[in-house]
Amino acid sequence: MSSPQYDSHPTLDAVFKPESIAVVGASRTPGKIGHEILRNLKLSGYAGTVYPINPQAGHILGLKCFARIEDVRGQKVDLAVIALPAQLVQQTLESCGRVGVRAVIIITSGFSEVGKAEEEAKLVEIARTYKMRIIGPNTFGIFYAPSKLNCTFGPNYVLSGKTAFITQSGALGLALMSWTTEEKYGVSSIVSIGNKSDVDDADLIEYFAQDEDTKSILIYMEGLKDGKRFYEASKEAVKKKPIIVIKSGRSQRGATAASSHTGSIAGQDRVYDAAFKGAGILRADTMTQAFDWLQAINENPIPQGENIMIITNGGGIGVLATDKCEQLGLKLMDVPEDLKAQLQETVPSYGSLRNPIDLTANADDETYRRALSLLMHREDVHGIIALFCQTATIDPSLVADAIATVDEGAKATRSKPLTAAFVGGHLSEVAYKRMLEKRFAAYPTTERCVDGMYALVARRRELLSAGLLSLQGH
Amino acid sequence: MSSPQYDSHPTLDAVFKPESIAVVGASRTPGKIGHEILRNLKLSGYAGTVYPINPQAGHILGLKCFARIEDVRGQKVDLAVIALPAQLVQQTLESCGRVGVRAVIIITSGFSEVGKAEEEAKLVEIARTYKMRIIGPNTFGIFYAPSKLNCTFGPNYVLSGKTAFITQSGALGLALMSWTTEEKYGVSSIVSIGNKSDVDDADLIEYFAQDEDTKSILIYMEGLKDGKRFYEASKEAVKKKPIIVIKSGRSQRGATAASSHTGSIAGQDRVYDAAFKGAGILRADTMTQAFDWLQAINENPIPQGENIMIITNGGGIGVLATDKCEQLGLKLMDVPEDLKAQLQETVPSYGSLRNPIDLTANADDETYRRALSLLMHREDVHGIIALFCQTATIDPSLVADAIATVDEGAKATRSKPLTAAFVGGHLSEVAYKRMLEKRFAAYPTTERCVDGMYALVARRRELLSAGLLSLQGH
Repeated sequence: MSSPQYDSHPTLDAVFKPESIAVVGASRTPGKIGHEILRNLKLSGYAGTVYPINPQAGHILGLKCFARIEDVRGQKVDLAVIALPAQLVQQTLESCGRVGVRAVIIITSGFSEVGKAEEEAKLVEIARTYKMRIIGPNTFGIFYAPSKLNCTFGPNYVLSGKTAFITQSGALGLALMSWTTEEKYGVSSIVSIGNKSDVDDADLIEYFAQDEDTKSILIYMEGLKDGKRFYEASKEAVKKKPIIVIKSGRSQRGATAASSHTGSIAGQDRVYDAAFKGAGILRADTMTQAFDWLQAINENPIPQGENIMIITNGGGIGVLATDKCEQLGLKLMDVPEDLKAQLQETVPSYGSLRNPIDLTANADDETYRRALSLLMHREDVHGIIALFCQTATIDPSLVADAIATVDEGAKATRSKPLTAAFVGGHLSEVAYKRMLEKRFAAYPTTERCVDGMYALVARRRELLSAGLLSLQGH
Repeated sequence: MSSPQYDSHPTLDAVFKPESIAVVGASRTPGKIGHEILRNLKLSGYAGTVYPINPQAGHILGLKCFARIEDVRGQKVDLAVIALPAQLVQQTLESCGRVGVRAVIIITSGFSEVGKAEEEAKLVEIARTYKMRIIGPNTFGIFYAPSKLNCTFGPNYVLSGKTAFITQSGALGLALMSWTTEEKYGVSSIVSIGNKSDVDDADLIEYFAQDEDTKSILIYMEGLKDGKRFYEASKEAVKKKPIIVIKSGRSQRGATAASSHTGSIAGQDRVYDAAFKGAGILRADTMTQAFDWLQAINENPIPQGENIMIITNGGGIGVLATDKCEQLGLKLMDVPEDLKAQLQETVPSYGSLRNPIDLTANADDETYRRALSLLMHREDVHGIIALFCQTATIDPSLVADAIATVDEGAKATRSKPLTAAFVGGHLSEVAYKRMLEKRFAAYPTTERCVDGMYALVARRRELLSAGLLSLQGH
């Protein structure tokens, strides 16, 4: 679907950084899509001008209505959002083109996803005539934090952060808008990509690759139309920032379900798998895994090597973490003799000086601080997995604070990648969320914590193989 | 370590259902182990008599102290808990034996786990002389809900439930005591098995197999001493209730770490793996997975077959769930034509009548109720995976309530296994926890929800292969 006559970046600015937006199909009725979008535009603090288009209403949510988009005379409209019945979309798109709209988001469904490919092709034809870009149809809209732009009918509050999330599933995207707030995981953007009639994954990857407010890209994908362009855009983008993809339709039946869901041809999974590897994309199995990886990548420097050290107050979780490391191909270093000698002052005799270093159940925040400080200052340690099992006597939050501040003594902030896990009940949850707020990668289980470190090592390998590590190292 | 002269069940009653307990090494100082155990015994509501043993104190926590266990004259002591320095344990054990104590929990560490195997063997010798059983040494104690017995130095509150948890890792067990409360997952018992000098996994499996308050058994294991006895005890027990094992030390380095942690010989992992399979034990990779499986098994009947149906309001999560099903070998049934006809009244035309059944993002509680009711009443549907993606307009808790009550119309309660997932933010969390409280297996992600159904199918296969399904079916 790519088309050489577009210079896509400036045109997508009309989507993400519009100076004015028309909502065609604006409604006075709460709960209706045309109302919710208008409401979210107001609540998100968008600073541009918003024009509700509705032939019957005088004002909606305090904004003056226009009967038709043509009535917004003398004002330019960068972006139009169309929330109208399918049969009205085509003529509305024509109107948008005539008044000089630069991009449209077509919320309306009932096009290629239900077999009406011709009707959809006609929309693209109109858009090309007028040099407009289309997001959708069949989308819930877009969120873009830097513009304070919540142009969706989803939740009104979304936490701002570093990841741009492109989703081919509307429901999953909407659910994740709520999830980000709950899990304190911020996003720079959410794009419900819909039927990808015009703007597709590749366009968005190119856009977010050069977007200063985006540090990583996450894609939920069921299928691609132009695999080659996706591959090329990704291969270029991963040099600057990591791309994580969840590609569903892995299984035979899953592929069939994907086809009936978005009309995607899921294709041979191994073809996708090879393409992702070739492009330097990390493929996650689940949303949880994707966000665990992003957490680790967003909050840490790239490791300088692959020497990983585990530190724990519980032998059991140390062993479980060790198993997980080996399963994922992470290399646990042997503890050098001089480090052993230093650690001896901190680790009790019934603990362990081997990796995993077992500080024992009596370890408190001071023990963690001393031991971690030794590891942080060593050049031969490249990544630290810090585990804490909740005990009856030590407050996990004190340990979290010790872990979060131990790096301050090192020469640079975040001198070394660190992932932490707090295993236990309520106090452990408080502790790991406290670390998240301090912008550390922290988790409620050992396996997720190890998986976070794996993502960092995988990203390092990716950059190494692209010959780009020196540009990215800290 | 098994010994034919014991009839282990009556003796372990002295551990789990003691009429009186002596705490040797009771302390007045909060934070000390000998104080915390006494405090937990009081707070948990244990109805038997507790004798603090401390030569210096008059009273501790309102209980009269005795200088030595021999001073508790004329009263029988079923269970003695020893929290003393290692060098005092042997003589104390002799004293316990002389006054007729039937079982001891030796909290003290510093025995075989630090290479002092001879000292530990001596303890076992003394116990055998006096026909006492030993839990430990190197344990944090035991919790047993039916006796309101929290004989640990862990958290004072533990949620009562159906699973007996045996742990070889102290720290992990303590962390899980807190976790159970937070996650609303109750346990019938927690046993910190320590060095297994006498009582081992096999003894406990036999005990819990006949314990009416225990419906399932969970074991965290680093290594076994008597593999054959474990195998035989398990093979017998799984006929009555499921056993789930997390065996760490899978990897080479993990096995080494396990050895330095509990002195276990982790052994060849594939030997363990084959033994677990042969005995009908389900092996989980992580604690999260183990509890997800238990949740599903504890709250559902055994499926009558393997025809699984997925119902969803989001195409994307439907596809992800389908992929996961295929990965785990779960069979998604084709939707029979007559069911399709019935569903047509409930599912919009832009949804899907294929499995996964896509009710679309507009589905509310009533839509779920109608569709699920159709599935619940069909004999050819054997298990239902109900997924809900949070939308902007429908309260997930209403859907949770609809799912939880739809079965009431069916001829028996819980006529069919059902696992549910609510994906999204805070409201989704409220919804799935609400279902947990109503004793349904509910999860925050699709993959964990599918994994729960997998456990039910695995349990069915286990019982089928043991020829026991007719006894267990509902």
